[in-house]
Amino acid sequence: MTGYSANDSLALMTDLYELTMAASYFDHGRNGQATFSLFIRDYPAHRGYFVAAGLEDLIDYLERFRFTPSDIDYLHRTKLFRPEFLDYLKELRFTGRLMALPEGTIFFTHEPIVELDGPLLETQLFESFVINALNLQTMIATKAARSVQAAAGRRVVDFSLRRTQGTEAGLKVARATYLAGFAGTSNVLAGKRYGIPVVGTMAHSYVTAFEREIDAFRSFVGSFPDNAVLLIDTYDTLEGAHKAVKVAGEMARQGKKLRGVRLDSGDMAALSVQVREILDQAGFKETLIFASGGFDEFKLAQVVSQGAAIDSFGVGTKVGVSADAPYLDIAYKLVMIEGRPVIKLSRGKKTLAGPKQVYRFLDDQGMMLKDLLARRDEEVEDGKPLLKMFMDSGRRIGPAEPLTAIRDRFQEQLYLLPPAYRGLESAPRYPVSLSRGLADLQDQVEQRIEERELGES
Amino acid sequence: MTGYSANDSLALMTDLYELTMAASYFDHGRNGQATFSLFIRDYPAHRGYFVAAGLEDLIDYLERFRFTPSDIDYLHRTKLFRPEFLDYLKELRFTGRLMALPEGTIFFTHEPIVELDGPLLETQLFESFVINALNLQTMIATKAARSVQAAAGRRVVDFSLRRTQGTEAGLKVARATYLAGFAGTSNVLAGKRYGIPVVGTMAHSYVTAFEREIDAFRSFVGSFPDNAVLLIDTYDTLEGAHKAVKVAGEMARQGKKLRGVRLDSGDMAALSVQVREILDQAGFKETLIFASGGFDEFKLAQVVSQGAAIDSFGVGTKVGVSADAPYLDIAYKLVMIEGRPVIKLSRGKKTLAGPKQVYRFLDDQGMMLKDLLARRDEEVEDGKPLLKMFMDSGRRIGPAEPLTAIRDRFQEQLYLLPPAYRGLESAPRYPVSLSRGLADLQDQVEQRIEERELGES
Repeated sequence: MTGYSANDSLALMTDLYELTMAASYFDHGRNGQATFSLFIRDYPAHRGYFVAAGLEDLIDYLERFRFTPSDIDYLHRTKLFRPEFLDYLKELRFTGRLMALPEGTIFFTHEPIVELDGPLLETQLFESFVINALNLQTMIATKAARSVQAAAGRRVVDFSLRRTQGTEAGLKVARATYLAGFAGTSNVLAGKRYGIPVVGTMAHSYVTAFEREIDAFRSFVGSFPDNAVLLIDTYDTLEGAHKAVKVAGEMARQGKKLRGVRLDSGDMAALSVQVREILDQAGFKETLIFASGGFDEFKLAQVVSQGAAIDSFGVGTKVGVSADAPYLDIAYKLVMIEGRPVIKLSRGKKTLAGPKQVYRFLDDQGMMLKDLLARRDEEVEDGKPLLKMFMDSGRRIGPAEPLTAIRDRFQEQLYLLPPAYRGLESAPRYPVSLSRGLADLQDQVEQRIEERELGES
Repeated sequence: MTGYSANDSLALMTDLYELTMAASYFDHGRNGQATFSLFIRDYPAHRGYFVAAGLEDLIDYLERFRFTPSDIDYLHRTKLFRPEFLDYLKELRFTGRLMALPEGTIFFTHEPIVELDGPLLETQLFESFVINALNLQTMIATKAARSVQAAAGRRVVDFSLRRTQGTEAGLKVARATYLAGFAGTSNVLAGKRYGIPVVGTMAHSYVTAFEREIDAFRSFVGSFPDNAVLLIDTYDTLEGAHKAVKVAGEMARQGKKLRGVRLDSGDMAALSVQVREILDQAGFKETLIFASGGFDEFKLAQVVSQGAAIDSFGVGTKVGVSADAPYLDIAYKLVMIEGRPVIKLSRGKKTLAGPKQVYRFLDDQGMMLKDLLARRDEEVEDGKPLLKMFMDSGRRIGPAEPLTAIRDRFQEQLYLLPPAYRGLESAPRYPVSLSRGLADLQDQVEQRIEERELGES
């Protein structure tokens, strides 16, 4: 595959400092039990919640984690590492525990998405991959959830492959958007890999490949009489609509139905209403109108509010790269080492010490009320714990979840999130507080750091 | 590898409609010689030029293009395709010609980056991949070139892996940033794959893994006495600097030198000056200052103008996803079929008909003056043609270019681009005009479309 070869493992898909730190831990025999926590520090503009996604890739990575002989040889050639350390890496496997929010879970800032327990050396090495895997799919699932909501019941499908940041991102975007409620994807490999319904219409090149637009339409419905969607904006959308009607009429005489037409440029709301009229007046009330071109949650909400006569949206680039927020402020931080809770105090980037559990509280109607962040070893009554164990002793517990089950989980959770928190333009902060035990722990750790680190040199 | 398996080829990394259109072309025996052209319609905000990158991935893809038996089986199961067509796909290979701008070439809107000549059916199928491959690396190389320029001679390295959109993007970002002048990457697999120098310092977790910050510093320089860079902002940057000085003193007594310190939060310009003073006053004038945290060309230019005492910048997320412009307005369009030049007229998305060549004209001083877009079959005097042939009859012509050669090409070209066009905030439009032959061709094609398509239904 482009960008990959059989000689390379994902073990080298890491930042160099993970390996130099590991080498130094190895030198000094520092390999005690550690807990790292993955969380998002802040909301991107407009967002009030996140949708957890990407965990399955992390589990797969941790299960397969190993350095190949070719990897070790490369590390040797950098001249940075002692042979004893490289021998140690050859045998290194993940031996720890993975706690995580199940994919499809709705969550909020500062809540752990993943916690990894294990020897310091290995849990440190995973940092770059853990962040990368959860960042991409969580960001996209969140953007997609907002888009489905904006479409207000109309069908939304993923057309983003051509402009996702790489082809791997194309696969992951198809998965994350489907998870969050999209109806399908144009990405054929994602269809094969993840079992997502594949969808598509035709391109302008098909139209221009024929002498006349109507020849192209006739040829296409000849090949796909049951599910043809004709792209009508290559030369002029309304002229295209009239030609589509002509072809639909020819199909009707053979007992066939034109499935739909697609708009891809111009004023979508106005054009769709005009095209609907052209189709309806000719008696083709069941012919669907598809639209694509620059859609995201904001443009979807806009055309819907303008009364667009669009049945199905193809959503591409802006969702596929989460254009208004193309990364999350996500971090993977050491929170405990050998039983000692730790934090960093760096300005604007303070972390919360200690392994944690997230508890969710519902109101009388069963709607989401508030979350509580607590120490993992604390007793909390009533609230429902959200972090589940997915791996123990380096092994997966139970089979991979079907994507459809994850998709269902998200729909159920979304239904329980009060509408205010789903605002597209802005949303109030969902209440997340610290338990007394966790708050006290922070005070203790900060006080210890004040005493030991500050004012001393 | 995560996201890939041996049973899958990149042939399915395409949009479904590429395959349904191909099936329809197959049905109707339409497989004449076609030319598709890849170009960028408009500049993202602030940009006045692009850096061509990603071609090597496209060549690799075209050379290896084939459907696996497992791919064919999947397509069969979609029930969309006739067995005759699937039999045809089994044997399908790229048989055409690839013209392209060599990687590292500076180019402008509407100039072809790639032109593919070949049978319609195959050249259509490649669309999604061609766009995806060239979009990502061209976008990142362009962003990186601007960042190197903003750093005004200071060293810039790639720290983006953790937040690139997938791990494949992490590899491609490392390649594209190096191509555009970065000095190295933290991405170890990119170092192995592309021969890029790998670089790194230490993380906050290393510091917090020790009881006291100074213990962490001592341990790290013990492991890497010749190239240790200490991260000093975990608790307080200036306190950290004092501890680094203490450790540097201990190293000096053993005849060793502390290589550097890294800042990762706070007011970088002010802090770097204070840290420089602390180091200098203690006699460590050669200890370098590294900085990371939210850098892109704008923040780089800002801290440089504020007189920051920073020697080397680690640039991550905002360049790794091209945050202010996370996609290009890039398209792959049919421009000729069976000798007939074609265009689409869709509002705001009009294309230029016909296969093309780009000619570059230099002024008396050898600086770039203007480009001319001409018909590929036209005679143009003086100008230097930029599109080269990279594949013919489906085979690569000559070996892959070394990345360092591409990097050198870009530096040479950048030197010839007049400074006005390199503006970070804004740049005038570099003059690109159409040859008389190409302009006439557009008129003829538009007139033909007016006659045949508009007003008729």
